[in-house]
Amino acid sequence: MGTTLWGGRFDGASDARMRAFGDSFSFDWRLASYDVTGSIAYAAALLDAGLLSPEEHGAIVSGLVAIAAEFAAGTFESSSDDEDVHTAVERRLTELIGETAGKLHTGRSRNDQVATDVRLYVLDAVDGVTAAVRAVQTALVTKAEEHRDAIMPGYTHMQAAQPILFSHWLLSFFWKLERDRTRLRDLRARTAVCPLGSGALAGNPFPIDRDALATELGFDSASENSLDAVEDRDFVAEFLAAAAVLQTHLSSLAETFILWAGDAYGFVRLDEAHCTGSSLMPQKRNPDVLELIRAKAGRIQGHLCGFLTTLKGLPSGYNKDLQEDKEGLFDVVDTLMAELPIVADVVAGLEVNAERMAAACEEAMLATDLADYLVDRGIPFREAHRIVGVVVRAAESAGCPLGALSVETYRGIHPAFGEDVHAVFDVHRAIARRAVKGGTAPEAVDRQIEAAHGVLAA
Amino acid sequence: MGTTLWGGRFDGASDARMRAFGDSFSFDWRLASYDVTGSIAYAAALLDAGLLSPEEHGAIVSGLVAIAAEFAAGTFESSSDDEDVHTAVERRLTELIGETAGKLHTGRSRNDQVATDVRLYVLDAVDGVTAAVRAVQTALVTKAEEHRDAIMPGYTHMQAAQPILFSHWLLSFFWKLERDRTRLRDLRARTAVCPLGSGALAGNPFPIDRDALATELGFDSASENSLDAVEDRDFVAEFLAAAAVLQTHLSSLAETFILWAGDAYGFVRLDEAHCTGSSLMPQKRNPDVLELIRAKAGRIQGHLCGFLTTLKGLPSGYNKDLQEDKEGLFDVVDTLMAELPIVADVVAGLEVNAERMAAACEEAMLATDLADYLVDRGIPFREAHRIVGVVVRAAESAGCPLGALSVETYRGIHPAFGEDVHAVFDVHRAIARRAVKGGTAPEAVDRQIEAAHGVLAA
Amino acid sequence: MGTTLWGGRFDGASDARMRAFGDSFSFDWRLASYDVTGSIAYAAALLDAGLLSPEEHGAIVSGLVAIAAEFAAGTFESSSDDEDVHTAVERRLTELIGETAGKLHTGRSRNDQVATDVRLYVLDAVDGVTAAVRAVQTALVTKAEEHRDAIMPGYTHMQAAQPILFSHWLLSFFWKLERDRTRLRDLRARTAVCPLGSGALAGNPFPIDRDALATELGFDSASENSLDAVEDRDFVAEFLAAAAVLQTHLSSLAETFILWAGDAYGFVRLDEAHCTGSSLMPQKRNPDVLELIRAKAGRIQGHLCGFLTTLKGLPSGYNKDLQEDKEGLFDVVDTLMAELPIVADVVAGLEVNAERMAAACEEAMLATDLADYLVDRGIPFREAHRIVGVVVRAAESAGCPLGALSVETYRGIHPAFGEDVHAVFDVHRAIARRAVKGGTAPEAVDRQIEAAHGVLAA
Amino acid sequence: MGTTLWGGRFDGASDARMRAFGDSFSFDWRLASYDVTGSIAYAAALLDAGLLSPEEHGAIVSGLVAIAAEFAAGTFESSSDDEDVHTAVERRLTELIGETAGKLHTGRSRNDQVATDVRLYVLDAVDGVTAAVRAVQTALVTKAEEHRDAIMPGYTHMQAAQPILFSHWLLSFFWKLERDRTRLRDLRARTAVCPLGSGALAGNPFPIDRDALATELGFDSASENSLDAVEDRDFVAEFLAAAAVLQTHLSSLAETFILWAGDAYGFVRLDEAHCTGSSLMPQKRNPDVLELIRAKAGRIQGHLCGFLTTLKGLPSGYNKDLQEDKEGLFDVVDTLMAELPIVADVVAGLEVNAERMAAACEEAMLATDLADYLVDRGIPFREAHRIVGVVVRAAESAGCPLGALSVETYRGIHPAFGEDVHAVFDVHRAIARRAVKGGTAPEAVDRQIEAAHGVLAA
Repeated sequence: MGTTLWGGRFDGASDARMRAFGDSFSFDWRLASYDVTGSIAYAAALLDAGLLSPEEHGAIVSGLVAIAAEFAAGTFESSSDDEDVHTAVERRLTELIGETAGKLHTGRSRNDQVATDVRLYVLDAVDGVTAAVRAVQTALVTKAEEHRDAIMPGYTHMQAAQPILFSHWLLSFFWKLERDRTRLRDLRARTAVCPLGSGALAGNPFPIDRDALATELGFDSASENSLDAVEDRDFVAEFLAAAAVLQTHLSSLAETFILWAGDAYGFVRLDEAHCTGSSLMPQKRNPDVLELIRAKAGRIQGHLCGFLTTLKGLPSGYNKDLQEDKEGLFDVVDTLMAELPIVADVVAGLEVNAERMAAACEEAMLATDLADYLVDRGIPFREAHRIVGVVVRAAESAGCPLGALSVETYRGIHPAFGEDVHAVFDVHRAIARRAVKGGTAPEAVDRQIEAAHGVLAA
Repeated sequence: MGTTLWGGRFDGASDARMRAFGDSFSFDWRLASYDVTGSIAYAAALLDAGLLSPEEHGAIVSGLVAIAAEFAAGTFESSSDDEDVHTAVERRLTELIGETAGKLHTGRSRNDQVATDVRLYVLDAVDGVTAAVRAVQTALVTKAEEHRDAIMPGYTHMQAAQPILFSHWLLSFFWKLERDRTRLRDLRARTAVCPLGSGALAGNPFPIDRDALATELGFDSASENSLDAVEDRDFVAEFLAAAAVLQTHLSSLAETFILWAGDAYGFVRLDEAHCTGSSLMPQKRNPDVLELIRAKAGRIQGHLCGFLTTLKGLPSGYNKDLQEDKEGLFDVVDTLMAELPIVADVVAGLEVNAERMAAACEEAMLATDLADYLVDRGIPFREAHRIVGVVVRAAESAGCPLGALSVETYRGIHPAFGEDVHAVFDVHRAIARRAVKGGTAPEAVDRQIEAAHGVLAA
Repeated sequence: MGTTLWGGRFDGASDARMRAFGDSFSFDWRLASYDVTGSIAYAAALLDAGLLSPEEHGAIVSGLVAIAAEFAAGTFESSSDDEDVHTAVERRLTELIGETAGKLHTGRSRNDQVATDVRLYVLDAVDGVTAAVRAVQTALVTKAEEHRDAIMPGYTHMQAAQPILFSHWLLSFFWKLERDRTRLRDLRARTAVCPLGSGALAGNPFPIDRDALATELGFDSASENSLDAVEDRDFVAEFLAAAAVLQTHLSSLAETFILWAGDAYGFVRLDEAHCTGSSLMPQKRNPDVLELIRAKAGRIQGHLCGFLTTLKGLPSGYNKDLQEDKEGLFDVVDTLMAELPIVADVVAGLEVNAERMAAACEEAMLATDLADYLVDRGIPFREAHRIVGVVVRAAESAGCPLGALSVETYRGIHPAFGEDVHAVFDVHRAIARRAVKGGTAPEAVDRQIEAAHGVLAA
Repeated sequence: MGTTLWGGRFDGASDARMRAFGDSFSFDWRLASYDVTGSIAYAAALLDAGLLSPEEHGAIVSGLVAIAAEFAAGTFESSSDDEDVHTAVERRLTELIGETAGKLHTGRSRNDQVATDVRLYVLDAVDGVTAAVRAVQTALVTKAEEHRDAIMPGYTHMQAAQPILFSHWLLSFFWKLERDRTRLRDLRARTAVCPLGSGALAGNPFPIDRDALATELGFDSASENSLDAVEDRDFVAEFLAAAAVLQTHLSSLAETFILWAGDAYGFVRLDEAHCTGSSLMPQKRNPDVLELIRAKAGRIQGHLCGFLTTLKGLPSGYNKDLQEDKEGLFDVVDTLMAELPIVADVVAGLEVNAERMAAACEEAMLATDLADYLVDRGIPFREAHRIVGVVVRAAESAGCPLGALSVETYRGIHPAFGEDVHAVFDVHRAIARRAVKGGTAPEAVDRQIEAAHGVLAA
C-alpha cells in the first residue's frame, strides 16, 4: 500500500506544504467515532451483499472496535500520511488486520463516507444543544415562579414604557428559546437522511441495501439521489443559521443582564462566580462571561456567512471546497455547548433587587392607563392620547409626577377626568388590567407558566 | 389632531432631516393591504369587546375597505406627515370618517400592529415562493423525463469522474429544492402566530379575544407572551436564511449551466430569450440572466447577515432597530419571485446536446469499474484501486484510452485480469450497475421520477 | 437600429420577464451625469484620434450636454428598451443627433464605460462622505470645548471604572472618525485610476490617448491592464468596508447616547427634534434616530458581505455578476449622507446634565488611585492591588464608601496607609494625575483639542 | 498572591466552567513574544520614570528574556490559573524573580497591554503577508515573460470574447495583488500607533514618556486619546477586510485555473505536487488545493463579518467582547501564510498547453475586429455592429466560420466590405491592434512587464 490512498497514481512525491494545507485530520479526527460507526454498519451491508465473508467481516469489526477504543482513550497514534480521519482509520485497520482492511472501501467513497460522518455528528449536536437550551428554559421558568410578583418597568426604545412583572419578562425568553428548539427539531429531520451507499457521485455499484444501512445508523431514511447526497451540505448551513438565531437571543439576554447589573440600573446582581475583577481596578465586578456571550453572536454569524459564501456558485458535483464545512461547525457546537450551561447558571444564580425594580416604576409609565381611563369615558383613543400629552407636559412644567396634579388641574385640562382619576396611579392595577392571553397580569402569567411546563414536559 | 400621532407631546417641530431618515412609509406602504386586513379584524374584536358600537364599527370597516381600494388602484395619496403605513392609513381614515377613526387604536400599539403586518406579508411570501419553487421542480422532472437516457460525465472537483444519466443530474436539483420547500413549510408554522393584542409590550388592557383575532386573520394561534410578540423577528431571519440556502442551490444551478453552455463544454444551449448580446462583440451570446442568479446569492446572504447583525446585542423590548427588518425582506422576496420563474423557463427551454455529452464520456471514467472488476475477482478494493492506478499510467504512457490496452498488457499488470476485461469499457454497463436506491441506473432514475411525482402531488 | 444594442444578433424577441430581471436602468440612472461626463471626454479622445470629425464631435457633445440637462431637470424620458443608463443615453443621443451617435461607441465597450462611471461616482461619494465625517468631528470638538471640565465616570464592561472628563470622552470619537477619513483618503487613491480605453477586455484597438483621457476626467492615472480594468471592483468592496468600519463607530456612539439619555443614566438629553413619541404611550421620548443609526451597522455590513460573496469564485473576465455592485453601493452612500449630518446635529444639540454625571462618580472608582498611593510608598502594584481589594470588601461590609473608612481601619489593613490617605478621594485629583499624552487630565485634553484643530485644518 | 490577578476581591471561588469559557490563554499564548517585548519596553519606561530601580529593572528584564526563551523553545509550562498570556507571563515572572514582578503592572492595565500586543502582531503579519503576496507577483511576472507570446481566448461571461496574450492575462492578477499590497501598506500606518500608557481607560497616572515608548517598540507614534486607544480594533477589522479582498483575487485565480485544468478546456496542467487523487477513482487528478483556496474566501469573509458584528453597537469603553478579536485574526493570517506560497508554487509550476489555447481562438472572436474594419471605412460603430450581427448569423446558417464566407457574401450583406475583408481573420493582427496602454498587444504587454518590475523593485 502506498503512502496515500491514491498512491498508485502519481510518480512524484506530493508537496509537503500542499499536504499540510489540504489535509484535514488535524480537525476531522473529531469525527472518528462516527466514522467507525459508519464503517461497522457498512461492513454489515457488505456482508449481507456477499462482498465480505463472515470471517472478514468479523476481523474488520474487531479492528474498528479497537480503533474506536484507541480514539476514546486518546491513544490513537496518527501518522504524517493520515490525510483525514477516513484514511487514518483505514491505515490503522490495515495495521491491525492486514489487507482485508482494503475490502471495506468496496463501492464506498470518501464522498459518501464523510457526508455520513458529518450528519451523524450534527444529529448528536442537535440533541445536545436541544437539551442545553431546555435547561435554560427550565431555569427561566423556575426563576419566574420564584419572583412571580416582582414588578419592574417594561422598556421599549430603552426607555421605561409600562410596568410589567419581572416573571413576564423572564418568560419572554422562554418562548424565544422554545422556537429555537422547534427549529432544531425541524432541521434534525432534514439531517436524518443517510447518504451512505451513494459512492463518489453515481451510486454504489454493488447490491447494498441502503434502506437497511440507514436504519442501522439511526437515520430516518436513505437519500433519494446520489449526486445530491454527496454534495448536500444544507444541513450544515441550516444548523449554523439556527445557531445564529439562537445566539441573537442569548446575545440579547446577555446585553439586558449587563445593563441591569450595572450601577445605573442595579436591578440584578450576578453571582460572583459569573464575574471577574480587574487587573488594575480593585473595585470592579465585570460581567465578562455575559459580554463574551453577547460577542459570540458575531462568531457564529461569521461561520454562517462564511459557509454560505463557500457554497455560493459551486458547480455541481463534490468539490473539495466542502471540506470547509467542519471547522466552523465544530466551533459553533463547542461555543453553544460551553455557553448554554453558563446561561442556565447565570439565570439560576441571579440575585434580584425587587426594591430597585419597583422604585424605577414611575408614574409617567401609567400615562397609557390614563388615556385608557378617558377611553372608558367614551373619548376616542387618539384624542385621549392627545389629552394625556397635555397632562404629561403640565406635570413636567410643575416638576411633579402625574399623580401629584390635582383633580382640578385634570378637569381643567379635560372635563372627562373625574374625581376618581388618581385611582389610575397604581402600578399593580395597571399590570392587572393586561389580562389577555400573553399579557403581564398575574393570572395571565400563571397561565403562561402552566403552558411553559406543558411544553417542557412534551 | 396634531401632525403626528404623538403630536401633543412636543413643543418644537420635528427636524425634517430626521423625519426623512426615520420615516418608513417610502417602503412600508407595501404592507398596506395587510395593515387594513389587520385593522378590520381588530375593529371586529373591539366591537365584540363593546369598545365600538355597531355604527362605529361599520364606519371604520367601510373606511378601511375604501382605503384598501385606493392602495390597490394606486390612487392613495400620501401626506408628508405619513410616518409609516399605519399612520397613513389612520390619517386617511380620519379624513374619510372623522374622529371615530381615533377609536381604532384603542389598546393597540404600532408595535403589535407592525408585527402582525409583517407576519401576514411573510405568510403570503412563503406561499408564493413555495409555488414558484414547485414550478422549477416540475420543469426539472419534465426535462428529466424528456432526456431520461442521455448520458454525460458526472463531475467531481470539476473533473470528469463517472458516467451518469443527465436525467439523474437534473433530479439532483429536484431534491435540493424539495428541502427548500420543507424549510419554508416549517418556518411558515413559526410565522403563523398572531401578535395582535399584545399592545406596546405588556398586553392589551381591554378584554379582547386574541384567539378569535388570530383565527380571523388566518394565523394558527395567538402568541404566548406580549413582550416577545412585539420584538420577535425570528421569522424574518429564518425566512432570509431559508432564502439564502435556496439561493445557493440556484447559484450552483446557474454556475453549472453557464459552464455547460460555454464553448469548452457545449453540453447545453440556452434559449435565445435567456441570453443577451454584447454592445461591442456581435458574436456573443451571454448567459446574463444566469450570471445574475449566481450573483444574487451575495445579495440575499447580505440581507441575512445584515439583519442578524442588526438583531445582535439588542436589549430586550421593542427597539426602532427592528424597522430595518423590511427593506431586505422585500428585496429578497422580490428577487426570488423574479428569478424562480426564470429558472423554470431556463430549464424548460434548455436545448440539450446529447451527442456532445456522450462524446465527453471518456474511458478513463470507467477506471472505478475496472477496479470493481478486480473486486469481483476477490481482490480487496484498496489493492484493486492501486492496480488500476498502474493501468491508468500505462495508458497515459502509451497515449491511448484504457480500453485500447491489450489483454496481454492487462494480464502483465495483474493476472486477475481476464479475457473479458474489455467488457468493462461500456458506459451504459457502468451506469446500469449503479442500481441501488438513489443511483444513476435507468431503473433507479425511474423510481426517483416516480418519487418526485409523489412529492409534487402531495 | 434594433430595439437593443445587440439587436442584429437574435431572431427571437427577448423574454420580457428576463429583461425586467436583467435590466439595470431602474437603478443605474443615478450614474447618468457620470456617464455623460465620461462620454464627453471619450468623444474628445475620438476627435484627437481622428475617429470623429470636428462637426461630429460638436454634435455629440451638444447632444450629451442636452441629455445631462434632461437628467438634471428630471425630464429625461426613459424607454422600455433602455437596458441600462448607457443604452438610454445612446438611444436618446440618436434621437437628438441621428446616426452620428453610433460613432461614440467606437472602440468602447459598456465594460470599460460602466467601470469608469462607477469610479467617478465613488470619487464623488468619498468626497461627500469625508466632508460629512469632518462635520461630525467639528461638532465633537466644539462640544468638548464647551464642556471641557464636566466630569463623569469612565466605563469599562459597562461598569463605572475611573473618573474622566466628558470632553475626553467626546474626543475619543473624534479620533475614530479621523481614522475613517484617512481610510477614505487611501481608497480614493486606488479609485482614481481610469479604466476607460480598455474596451470589452483586451484594450482599445484605436490609438486613443488613455493618459490624456484619465487626466481629463480627473483621475490620477490610467489603468495598467485592460483585463483587470474592466473586472476590478476592489474599490467598491473597499469603500463598503470603510463604510462598515465607520458605521461601527456611529453605532457605538448611538448606543452610548441611547443609554445615557435613558432614565437610568440621565447624563444627556437629546434635542426634541431628535426624538419621537409613542402612538400608545404619551410620556415617551424615544431616541428613534439613534436606534436606526445603531441598526444600520447591519445594513452596511450586509452590503459589504453580500458584495464580497458575489465576487467570490468568479472566473476572470467581466461577468454580469458585477452588475450587483451598484444597488448596495448607492444604498450605503445614501445612508451615510443621510445619517452623518444627523449625527452632527445630535452632538451639537446634546443637552448635558453635568450634575448627574458628577454624581455618578462614586469613590469606588478611585480604588486604583488608592493602589497607586501604596505604589508611591514602595509597595509593588500587584500587592497594592490585593490590599485595596481588602479595603473594598471592608467598605462593602461596612456599607459605606471607601473614603468613610477611618485612618485606623486603613492602617489596620496595611501599615503603609498614612494619615493623608483621604486625600486620594478627590475625583479632580484623580483626573489631573492622568496627564500623559492621551490622558484625561485637563492639560492633556487641551493638547488633544489643539491637535484636533490641527487635523481639521490640514 | 491569589490565584487570579483580582484574587483579593472575591470571596467565592470562580466557577470552573465560566473560567474555561472566559480564559484566553489557549489561543492568546501566540502573542507571548509581543507581550514580553512590550513588557521590556514598559520596564524601561518605568525605570526612566523612577518607578523601578536599576536592580529591579535588571531583574525584570532578565526574567522576561528567560520567559521569552521558554515560549520560543516550547518549554513554557502553563498553569490552570493562567487566564491569558499576560497573567501567564506575570505569574511566571513572579516565580522567577519574586515579588518585584508585581511592580511591572504599575500604571498599566491589561487593556492597553493587549491592545499593544495585538498591534505588534498585526504589524508583523502585514509584513509577512506583503512579502508572500510579492512572491506571487514575482511568479506571475516570471511566467508572463516565459509565455509572453502564447495566445488564448479572452473571456467575458465565461464565453470566448476576443483573443489575448496569456501573458496579459497573467499580468491582470499582478495588478490586483499590487492593490492588495498598497492596502496592506496603508493599514499598516494606522496600526503603527502605540496604545501603551493609556491604562485601563483614562491614561497612565505616572509620568511615563509615551512617545519614547512608542519609538522603542517600533510604532510610528503614540495614540492621541486613552479611551480610544484601549477600545480601538479598527486595525483588526481593516486587516480582515484587506484579507477578504485579497482572497477574492486568490479565489478568482483558483477558479480560473480549476476550469482551465479541466478536461473541457485543457489549457493548463497543474504540477502533480498540487493535485490529489481519488480514493475511489484511480484516474482522477483533482486540483484540491485550488478548490480549498477558492473556498477559503468564505472563511476569511466569515471572520470579517463576524468581527464587524461583534463590534456593532458596543457601548464605548473596553468591553470583554473585544477578546473575540484574536482567533479569527490568527486564522486569517495562518490561512494567508499557508496558501500564498502555494499559489506562487502553482503559478511557477503551471504547464501551459499553448496549442490548445491557440486552437480555442475561433474566428467568431474577431467579430469586433470585423466591425472595426467597417468603422475604418466610415460606418458608425453602432451600425457596423449591427451589420456584423447579420454576418454572424449568416455564418451560423452556413455552418462555417466567419472567414469562410466569400467576399461576395460579405458584399451582399454590406457594400463597405472590400476584397481585403479576410485580412481581418488573423488573431495576431487582432492582438497587435490593442496597443494602447494596458492593451494586450505584445508591445503593450512589454511595457506592462517593465512597469511590473518597477513596482517590485520599489
